[in-house]
Amino acid sequence: MKPTHIEHIGIAVKSLEEAIPFYEKVLGLECYAIEEVVDQKVKTAFFKVGDVKIELLESTDPEGPIGKFVEKTGGGMHHLAFAVEDVQEALNDAAEAGCQLIDKTPRGGAEGLKIGFLHPKSTQRVLTELCGNK
Amino acid sequence: MKPTHIEHIGIAVKSLEEAIPFYEKVLGLECYAIEEVVDQKVKTAFFKVGDVKIELLESTDPEGPIGKFVEKTGGGMHHLAFAVEDVQEALNDAAEAGCQLIDKTPRGGAEGLKIGFLHPKSTQRVLTELCGNK
Repeated sequence: MKPTHIEHIGIAVKSLEEAIPFYEKVLGLECYAIEEVVDQKVKTAFFKVGDVKIELLESTDPEGPIGKFVEKTGGGMHHLAFAVEDVQEALNDAAEAGCQLIDKTPRGGAEGLKIGFLHPKSTQRVLTELCGNK
Repeated sequence: MKPTHIEHIGIAVKSLEEAIPFYEKVLGLECYAIEEVVDQKVKTAFFKVGDVKIELLESTDPEGPIGKFVEKTGGGMHHLAFAVEDVQEALNDAAEAGCQLIDKTPRGGAEGLKIGFLHPKSTQRVLTELCGNK
């Protein structure tokens, strides 16, 4: 696997409405998109700094993955996504290198990208996502 | 404040020796430096992907900030560092925007950079660092 850059950093928040002003007014970044990802039970807000996106995640369902994370931790950095050319190939590479996977095949993520998650058990407790156009 | 890019993502790990192989063998990144930061009671290992560094942090003292974080959480993403031109100016900007600070003036960090931390109470529970050359 050869990731080209960090595609995004996923940050779980209680409320987009409360969190967006920190990124806009304190850090001086611009929220360029708000999108609901029904499959993941979240509403997302996107910022860009350098070649990295910051993806704020507000749960739309307390039983969804972000709802449970916020309930347990109060919120914070949730996952780290690496950009790769071919997600299926990168998942195969990871499995061959002995890494446990959450997704054996890519699924659809925000912004129309293909995504796949590695398992935190194999990643030193960092939920690691791979994303790409195919 | 106008950060140019994510300078690094700080990830707390129990052991660099156990963590480095995931970044090298699974993700295909190269560890280009290992450095001890005595002041922070950590040993750090650096990787680069795109314009972002990944800084793995192993505590050298259970009573240090990373030692306590690993004891409480098991490890994981610890802080997010934004690159700014002038850290003092950026800290002043943040305070003026109503943000609580950990550091009112910059101090020395890894790789000879000036650094200053914003307080997680003001940053939606993400420990946020600003770093720069001055």
